Amino acid sequence: MTAKQRYFIELSYDGTHYHGWQTQPNAVTVQEVLNEKLSIILRQPIETLGCGRTDTGVHAKGQVASLDADTHLVPERLRMAVNSRLPPDILIRQIEPTSPDFDASRALRKRYRYVIWQSRDRPVFYRHYVYHYWHDLDVSLMQKAAVLFQGEHDFVAFQGRVEERQTTVREIYHCSANRRGPIIIFSVEGNGFLYHMVRSMAGTVLEVGRGRLAPEQIRSILASSDRREAGPCLPPMGLCLQWIKF
Amino acid sequence: MTAKQRYFIELSYDGTHYHGWQTQPNAVTVQEVLNEKLSIILRQPIETLGCGRTDTGVHAKGQVASLDADTHLVPERLRMAVNSRLPPDILIRQIEPTSPDFDASRALRKRYRYVIWQSRDRPVFYRHYVYHYWHDLDVSLMQKAAVLFQGEHDFVAFQGRVEERQTTVREIYHCSANRRGPIIIFSVEGNGFLYHMVRSMAGTVLEVGRGRLAPEQIRSILASSDRREAGPCLPPMGLCLQWIKF
Repeated sequence: MTAKQRYFIELSYDGTHYHGWQTQPNAVTVQEVLNEKLSIILRQPIETLGCGRTDTGVHAKGQVASLDADTHLVPERLRMAVNSRLPPDILIRQIEPTSPDFDASRALRKRYRYVIWQSRDRPVFYRHYVYHYWHDLDVSLMQKAAVLFQGEHDFVAFQGRVEERQTTVREIYHCSANRRGPIIIFSVEGNGFLYHMVRSMAGTVLEVGRGRLAPEQIRSILASSDRREAGPCLPPMGLCLQWIKF
Repeated sequence: MTAKQRYFIELSYDGTHYHGWQTQPNAVTVQEVLNEKLSIILRQPIETLGCGRTDTGVHAKGQVASLDADTHLVPERLRMAVNSRLPPDILIRQIEPTSPDFDASRALRKRYRYVIWQSRDRPVFYRHYVYHYWHDLDVSLMQKAAVLFQGEHDFVAFQGRVEERQTTVREIYHCSANRRGPIIIFSVEGNGFLYHMVRSMAGTVLEVGRGRLAPEQIRSILASSDRREAGPCLPPMGLCLQWIKF
């Protein structure tokens, strides 16, 4: 008789060279690489269940997944063994046994960060982790716009494509834009996110920063439910899934 | 009659994918790529003269070079034009006309930084810019060792290979080791550096941090003039040439 145990996994990855998180045919994904290495170490076929997808080129500091396995390995041993097999751009930060009804797809809160490198000069050392924007940006206006996302709203105007979901209403607990030297950090924390939602929010806040939209227009864009009213979806390399809470 | 003007160039590069700074046969170097792009934009063969070499895989935030060219281009125009042709891992930060007797090989001061990632876990996002060291390090001992490098000493014990130079005496104006989270920064500023000197100094200070050497032994290693007394030359990816003064 096998006794499978459910495990909680927290992992970091540099998404530059992956076609996103989720396993798909004909493309290398983080989940596929992770499943492969876990299966080798655990000597059984492992299929992780992730807490939502990240797109091609998007990074994660704290992605969460779960897996079921029958093993006598101590979790920290397992973690070290899998990490030694994983490529340098993927790292398991934590593996812990969890309850059999833990569902990685049911997060309570997630935080994303979108990083803009605002400088005439290209970033040399951060180039895979930031979106380079040449022109001046008024970060105080961006901050005024960002806080207007806080609260419960229908985010259909910030949805990248129509999906079969019950609702496009999400609650945003925190949203801010801050500068540190050439870096502008757009942070957003909420109970869930639609496809391309963070990158479209960041693109809209960027339009505010460059003076094409007034901060208050965030309200009317939300109310419009029209994707064409919002700003562009910014490129993936600036986005990082920071953490997830359950 | 052509009137060549001498120019001062300051540039940054991520050395990960280059065989160092200096042009050599059968390997891609930063200088070679730079010369090629400058020659295209300036429509004349350009040979830069660098302020010393950086090795394969070593980075530079502020390398300095000079070049002679006959051009009517405004320096900032030239800078932008060359930057738009350079690959994303090389950036010219500054180009200025300078005096014809400016000699890029005669720096007064240089600062290097060697970065150690001290954590059980591999660095995911900084992996190309740090040296990963698993075990605990006592940074206060490392700092005690680092300051003993300050002053004028014969650094022959920290020289990677014997070179035809007049002297192996160098003056170190500043040397320190500090921790910021998992990152330990070893900084060293001096009037010049021998081959592999900074990486060998960092390797010796690492030996102090792990308890294999006492801080005071820096004095006896310097006095020994024996390369075998010093610690190992650490790998290149942790090293960055920060700036150069003339």
